[in-house]
Amino acid sequence: MTPPASPTAPSFTGITAAPAPVPSQAQVYAEIQQFYAQQMYLLDEGATDKWALTFTPDAWLDLPMAPVALQGQDSVAGAARLRRDELDREDRRQRHVPCAVFVDPVDAGTVRARCQVLVLTTLRGGRPDIAFSMTCEDVLVRAADGAGWLVKDRLVVSDSSG
Amino acid sequence: MTPPASPTAPSFTGITAAPAPVPSQAQVYAEIQQFYAQQMYLLDEGATDKWALTFTPDAWLDLPMAPVALQGQDSVAGAARLRRDELDREDRRQRHVPCAVFVDPVDAGTVRARCQVLVLTTLRGGRPDIAFSMTCEDVLVRAADGAGWLVKDRLVVSDSSG
Amino acid sequence: MTPPASPTAPSFTGITAAPAPVPSQAQVYAEIQQFYAQQMYLLDEGATDKWALTFTPDAWLDLPMAPVALQGQDSVAGAARLRRDELDREDRRQRHVPCAVFVDPVDAGTVRARCQVLVLTTLRGGRPDIAFSMTCEDVLVRAADGAGWLVKDRLVVSDSSG
Repeated sequence: MTPPASPTAPSFTGITAAPAPVPSQAQVYAEIQQFYAQQMYLLDEGATDKWALTFTPDAWLDLPMAPVALQGQDSVAGAARLRRDELDREDRRQRHVPCAVFVDPVDAGTVRARCQVLVLTTLRGGRPDIAFSMTCEDVLVRAADGAGWLVKDRLVVSDSSG
Repeated sequence: MTPPASPTAPSFTGITAAPAPVPSQAQVYAEIQQFYAQQMYLLDEGATDKWALTFTPDAWLDLPMAPVALQGQDSVAGAARLRRDELDREDRRQRHVPCAVFVDPVDAGTVRARCQVLVLTTLRGGRPDIAFSMTCEDVLVRAADGAGWLVKDRLVVSDSSG
Repeated sequence: MTPPASPTAPSFTGITAAPAPVPSQAQVYAEIQQFYAQQMYLLDEGATDKWALTFTPDAWLDLPMAPVALQGQDSVAGAARLRRDELDREDRRQRHVPCAVFVDPVDAGTVRARCQVLVLTTLRGGRPDIAFSMTCEDVLVRAADGAGWLVKDRLVVSDSSG
């Protein structure tokens, strides 16, 4: 599939609806909430390779501090490792807390989703600080095995960017 | 309908249950969680008029800092605009983060709901501060088109009020 | 039933699946999210006895600051009362904000669940502080009346512990 022209305006050309029974809105919403929870736990526990597999192979990730958008599982894993090294040097634990999940279905296998993320860092023996408040603007697609969801396109907007 | 005698003790007289199939608990809970997420996103993005439409025309809003409870969409929009002007002068971005949603069904078209809201403000280029921790004690009613929920009565309690 | 050998590795021996229809994943997930919301509201409102009843009679609670794991409703209530006395002396309001709920079903009446909890304290007239960022690693069991869930085993891990 051709990569989207831009990480914020992906093309859905070629996506066909699954023939399976349509899951209820509640079912999809529960799945997406659990997806965000698990994805953030993987990242914060340093399971970087598993975390990268929550993105599609051709996924775009557009971060507020990065000069260009990243594409692909290796690139997003690389960014996560750089951040982890920085945290390790500072002896900080990081926590991405997903909140305020909103889901807008596109078709049986695709949703647009939004998630507010509070990023906390805690020094050993210290108190948590809120380092960032960010919004993930995502396009999520159902994984090929039907068992979960993957990020196809993520735009991260920081409240600090004004 | 006669307005409720008090914003914290609304009368349900005259509300009749919808004849439609009763949605599952999970369905209603997903709808209410999404309602809170969307309502807070609208407020924080400055879509004040759309945000005001998430209240019924006769809704009560009782805020911790206001001397009296507000009634009606114009009144609540006015309060939101005053707050927004204040934030703009301070060059701050505001974020209402809804958490810990609890829903207690009253009838097919009415729920009592509670939501913990963390209010963060972020200066451009700065770090987020938690300005308030508040609880919304709400009566929500299903919108006439059946597609969503509206606030009929909201009591906001701040943890700072002691 | 024999108490679990360790609070982090409970035995499921003797638990038999309920013969009732299996609730949907969305239904269970909604129930667990509401369970966490209600449990935290009870604790923060000082309804300590009701809060203790959200644990099974033989439940284990392993807290980061406690030298040993607590067992039973009286023990966990005692710990909550000690903390409440401390908060009252400091004129602080406490708020446990549950986020990022993840549920892994074990059988019809048992789930492993994880929940990120931000613990905020607010001085009267002051601003909220994040005192702790913690993760609850729980085994939850369906209550005998089928109406809700109970903590059978809770390990609380603080981000400050490094």
